[in-house]
Amino acid sequence: MLRYMTAGESHGKGLVGIIDGMPKGVKVEKIDFDTILKRRLAGYGRGGRSKIEGDKVEIISGVRFGLTLGSPIALLIRNIDHENWSHLMETDPPRPSSIETIDLPRPGHADLVGALKFDTGDIRDIIERASARETAMRTAISVPARSLLTALEIDSVSFVLQIGSVKASIQRNSSIETLKNAMTATGDAFLTPDSKAAKKWKGLIDKALAEGDTLGGITETRFVGIPIGIGNFMQWDKRLDARLAYSLMSIPGVRAVEIGEGIELSGKSGSAARDIIKYSNSLGYTRKTNFSGGLEGGMTSGQPLVIRCYMKPIPTLKRGKTIQLRTHSEKAVRYERSDAVA
Amino acid sequence: MLRYMTAGESHGKGLVGIIDGMPKGVKVEKIDFDTILKRRLAGYGRGGRSKIEGDKVEIISGVRFGLTLGSPIALLIRNIDHENWSHLMETDPPRPSSIETIDLPRPGHADLVGALKFDTGDIRDIIERASARETAMRTAISVPARSLLTALEIDSVSFVLQIGSVKASIQRNSSIETLKNAMTATGDAFLTPDSKAAKKWKGLIDKALAEGDTLGGITETRFVGIPIGIGNFMQWDKRLDARLAYSLMSIPGVRAVEIGEGIELSGKSGSAARDIIKYSNSLGYTRKTNFSGGLEGGMTSGQPLVIRCYMKPIPTLKRGKTIQLRTHSEKAVRYERSDAVA
Amino acid sequence: MLRYMTAGESHGKGLVGIIDGMPKGVKVEKIDFDTILKRRLAGYGRGGRSKIEGDKVEIISGVRFGLTLGSPIALLIRNIDHENWSHLMETDPPRPSSIETIDLPRPGHADLVGALKFDTGDIRDIIERASARETAMRTAISVPARSLLTALEIDSVSFVLQIGSVKASIQRNSSIETLKNAMTATGDAFLTPDSKAAKKWKGLIDKALAEGDTLGGITETRFVGIPIGIGNFMQWDKRLDARLAYSLMSIPGVRAVEIGEGIELSGKSGSAARDIIKYSNSLGYTRKTNFSGGLEGGMTSGQPLVIRCYMKPIPTLKRGKTIQLRTHSEKAVRYERSDAVA
Amino acid sequence: MLRYMTAGESHGKGLVGIIDGMPKGVKVEKIDFDTILKRRLAGYGRGGRSKIEGDKVEIISGVRFGLTLGSPIALLIRNIDHENWSHLMETDPPRPSSIETIDLPRPGHADLVGALKFDTGDIRDIIERASARETAMRTAISVPARSLLTALEIDSVSFVLQIGSVKASIQRNSSIETLKNAMTATGDAFLTPDSKAAKKWKGLIDKALAEGDTLGGITETRFVGIPIGIGNFMQWDKRLDARLAYSLMSIPGVRAVEIGEGIELSGKSGSAARDIIKYSNSLGYTRKTNFSGGLEGGMTSGQPLVIRCYMKPIPTLKRGKTIQLRTHSEKAVRYERSDAVA
Repeated sequence: MLRYMTAGESHGKGLVGIIDGMPKGVKVEKIDFDTILKRRLAGYGRGGRSKIEGDKVEIISGVRFGLTLGSPIALLIRNIDHENWSHLMETDPPRPSSIETIDLPRPGHADLVGALKFDTGDIRDIIERASARETAMRTAISVPARSLLTALEIDSVSFVLQIGSVKASIQRNSSIETLKNAMTATGDAFLTPDSKAAKKWKGLIDKALAEGDTLGGITETRFVGIPIGIGNFMQWDKRLDARLAYSLMSIPGVRAVEIGEGIELSGKSGSAARDIIKYSNSLGYTRKTNFSGGLEGGMTSGQPLVIRCYMKPIPTLKRGKTIQLRTHSEKAVRYERSDAVA
Repeated sequence: MLRYMTAGESHGKGLVGIIDGMPKGVKVEKIDFDTILKRRLAGYGRGGRSKIEGDKVEIISGVRFGLTLGSPIALLIRNIDHENWSHLMETDPPRPSSIETIDLPRPGHADLVGALKFDTGDIRDIIERASARETAMRTAISVPARSLLTALEIDSVSFVLQIGSVKASIQRNSSIETLKNAMTATGDAFLTPDSKAAKKWKGLIDKALAEGDTLGGITETRFVGIPIGIGNFMQWDKRLDARLAYSLMSIPGVRAVEIGEGIELSGKSGSAARDIIKYSNSLGYTRKTNFSGGLEGGMTSGQPLVIRCYMKPIPTLKRGKTIQLRTHSEKAVRYERSDAVA
Repeated sequence: MLRYMTAGESHGKGLVGIIDGMPKGVKVEKIDFDTILKRRLAGYGRGGRSKIEGDKVEIISGVRFGLTLGSPIALLIRNIDHENWSHLMETDPPRPSSIETIDLPRPGHADLVGALKFDTGDIRDIIERASARETAMRTAISVPARSLLTALEIDSVSFVLQIGSVKASIQRNSSIETLKNAMTATGDAFLTPDSKAAKKWKGLIDKALAEGDTLGGITETRFVGIPIGIGNFMQWDKRLDARLAYSLMSIPGVRAVEIGEGIELSGKSGSAARDIIKYSNSLGYTRKTNFSGGLEGGMTSGQPLVIRCYMKPIPTLKRGKTIQLRTHSEKAVRYERSDAVA
Repeated sequence: MLRYMTAGESHGKGLVGIIDGMPKGVKVEKIDFDTILKRRLAGYGRGGRSKIEGDKVEIISGVRFGLTLGSPIALLIRNIDHENWSHLMETDPPRPSSIETIDLPRPGHADLVGALKFDTGDIRDIIERASARETAMRTAISVPARSLLTALEIDSVSFVLQIGSVKASIQRNSSIETLKNAMTATGDAFLTPDSKAAKKWKGLIDKALAEGDTLGGITETRFVGIPIGIGNFMQWDKRLDARLAYSLMSIPGVRAVEIGEGIELSGKSGSAARDIIKYSNSLGYTRKTNFSGGLEGGMTSGQPLVIRCYMKPIPTLKRGKTIQLRTHSEKAVRYERSDAVA
């Protein structure tokens, strides 16, 4: 029902998003964007850029007096430091004759493949859009969707489950409220209900920062209150598990997506992995366990929906040696130093 | 470019698939379907149904003298045992008055959620389509797509990496040819290049069969020869990693999808996880490692594309206790025994 | 909600269609297909092929005891004369060395453009799929959709409004029932409520047949009972008028699509073209006129939905002069005679 | 390949559009937007709103130094009179207690159906998005697409063919250049190559304005230089004629779409309607006539692509009588006067 597109370069004028298909009458207010974007920037050890971001969302359309109109919602986030970059990212011609180009492709990024695919000698043409800066707009676009979930009395929580090699200890049966309270106690810097893990992560991150290194991690999201039967097994592309994997794997850096206890289950026997059905007049159908993460047959089962993202460490480090980049148009360029090469 | 839909019930007349968007002139022959469908049924310890399947594909359209026409390819697999089931799965009315219904929902399947979503008192209405039998048609539909890869000189191999708790030992740098040869030596019963693992799996499976139990597992697929730059980071839904996750997570039983060494990377530091770029005149751009599984920035990097599926054990076991199923239309049905409940 | 794909060549094994997204519990029976396909072939002056068609639909999936399952419905129509053509349309290799090819492109068909686009020297590769034979499957696929309309108490009628230069006289305010009765009286050969027009058309068609000529025409479809508000103006691609135009213009030979009195309105003033709103407790909102054909703002207004297709005459006639066809691959072929050229 | 979404209310903060899928390196400059938006407002007799529009497009993303990056292009048009309307169209809450609402539905607009569908007592919730103001963003979004056509050496012209009952006289074989020159001579107020028709239209429009009336009309667009074989007959939704009809019928007010001489052809015989194929070494394949408007079998034939839109007169006139509007939520509202009702 909902669809969205984003646009915008990392150091261009700003980011734009359109979310289409929202029902009418859902509460969407400016403060919700501010809150979530501020939280996005609070992560401990985050890159320096975040300090100057201070993103503000302007709602251009689709909302009237704090309620959705049912029309497309357009959002705009100005890049507040754009003026520092405008000589490099001007939309209007001409291209200055002496502009600084980027010709050192970083490993593990879109840099090299993008330069080859789009046949450019200036990697800035690639990285401005491939940048994770784009997720600021995705975060903003999530606000109307979150409001819709709230209106449907679906509650959710997302937290960090692991950083580097240290995994947080989270109870499978904790309520959303308990988890949220524990996260508030831990603070936005670590977004986890496990304050002990947070302390260890702080140490790991400090060490990584000192060494110019980065760390991978795992996130988990849980939803409760989703009606039974969302998604459909009748055709492959309608399964909700598949659609969730599509969305989550599209986040830069996410390299694996797991539903429920999917990875653990792959090593188990069926007798130890089944979610036995229970019925009571008060609760209706429930399950004794939730290995399936709330998704059975590509549909929501009414149990908590649990999904995990495995994120690789950001591969941006210090510089290294020399290489020649050759684009399709055969313009060989000699790069002086790059850690991208050996 | 390619899209497909499947249709068909497990005990109905048959399975139908249409694959649309194939280019003209690609070699597609009947024997390719027979080979792959036979292989699909050769798995050691597979359920009894496979013995009677003996699926044959009829190419209805889209192919002329063994070459694609560029038109939609329609495939038909008759269910050869349909006549045994026709009293239960007749398309024409009337519904017999005394037909046997299924009212014991199995845990971990679409049974219960499907019955509630589609509001039926006969779970057969659900399981006939939710059955993994549907993957027979997906397997068939893969044949033209595989032929297209072959025409593009893209080679690939899929194998079983793990069954239950026992993981095969596979070299990361093995060539596709080496892996295929090793798989041939091991035989179609286990589809793995590691014959030692195959032996252990045989023991695990024999034990599980004896106990009426099942086992989960992991598969890995590798592609080599993919051109650089397939997929796109410009909009979230164009990333190839996301599209692959969408497709693979739609396979019944798959509960996690991993690109390259995604899960391992989530626990590592960036300095240990980067694929350093190399360049040589003979090979062009390559990488020293392939942690990213051939996908950088949602695009193919030219390195081998590596992707894994984590499959839960089939939850179909023996029967258990009693429960009442209530569909939306409030028709309560008393079930005699079910392992679905407790 | 509903989507479909068709497949099949005109002289291949048959036609296949899959319609996906049907709700569960809608009545779909074999006889409905037979009736509508028989009617499709009853048109007066139709080409000779229709005499041998005698199409029968086999429902392969999606229907159980005459009711939809909610799963994809697959339909199969065997080409009953395929065996006469199998030497030309075999799916399996090899291609016979001495096969008769088609190298005379007919004007106004896909022949020439298709041969150039798909770079083939045998126009049969093109015309087998481009043939209007494909509409037999579209007709079959309409049956479940029609049943859904019936279940929603939406009634409809389609009739021929004009053949050649002679237009039928149809009352704008006639009820669907009146129109259907008049059509039954006229007979399936002309599918029109105006028996006088039918007589004139018989004369026109007889003359055209005698001269080896063909005739264009116009069809009209009316729906009553559609709920208010189907379709949406919020984004361009959700408007129902646009979606209807998409569907109808995709029918081979249709060269214009009109909503309501669209063409007439383009020559009028606003004061003469407005559908004044009325309200009564018994009928709710109605309109004094229905110039807009039941669509306002891309949504159904509750008034009868009226849509017309303008179909060009089939351009297949007798043969003419000589031309050389050159495909992209530069294989020049000398054609002996063709009316395609001058 | 290209897709787009628009957003924005008529008196809100502005209009936003994202066009996704543009190739890299296409020239897109600010002046192109200014030129086309100025032209959009130059129509003789256009409503008063146009005088204050003076739309300026801000390119937010997707363009660097006048060339596309291959990333999504986001465009923003501020509604320069928004501050006059901000008390009615504020995005933030609260809704003022004494706000003026619109409760007189105009006939022939989305007003009534929209109010019922979205269940609102304030028709402003509907008309702000349903307004033809949205086409300002579509016009802007066309600029990158036009630049792409230019880069592909495809030339085009769009002109007014008819206003009210007076049709312009346009040569079918005129070159694009001739037509453009004649249009320039006539001026932007009428956008037609036929200056005599323009004079008559001025009289018609003056009369209509004096009477508070409006007029319908017809537009024609011609493209030359399109490569042979764009579009595809292999599946219904790939036909270019169908896709064009989808796009054009989505323009508010367009009630019929015609390819080539489609309407005329429907009244003719095949012998008078065929586009005979010619071949010459210098020109390749051409046609003696172009009844088919450059589309054969849903593909471009290489002949000029000709397409027409039939637009109804705007139904906004003076006010009339009294009616009660009842939304779904049963809040009856008494309207004082409306020409919508009788």
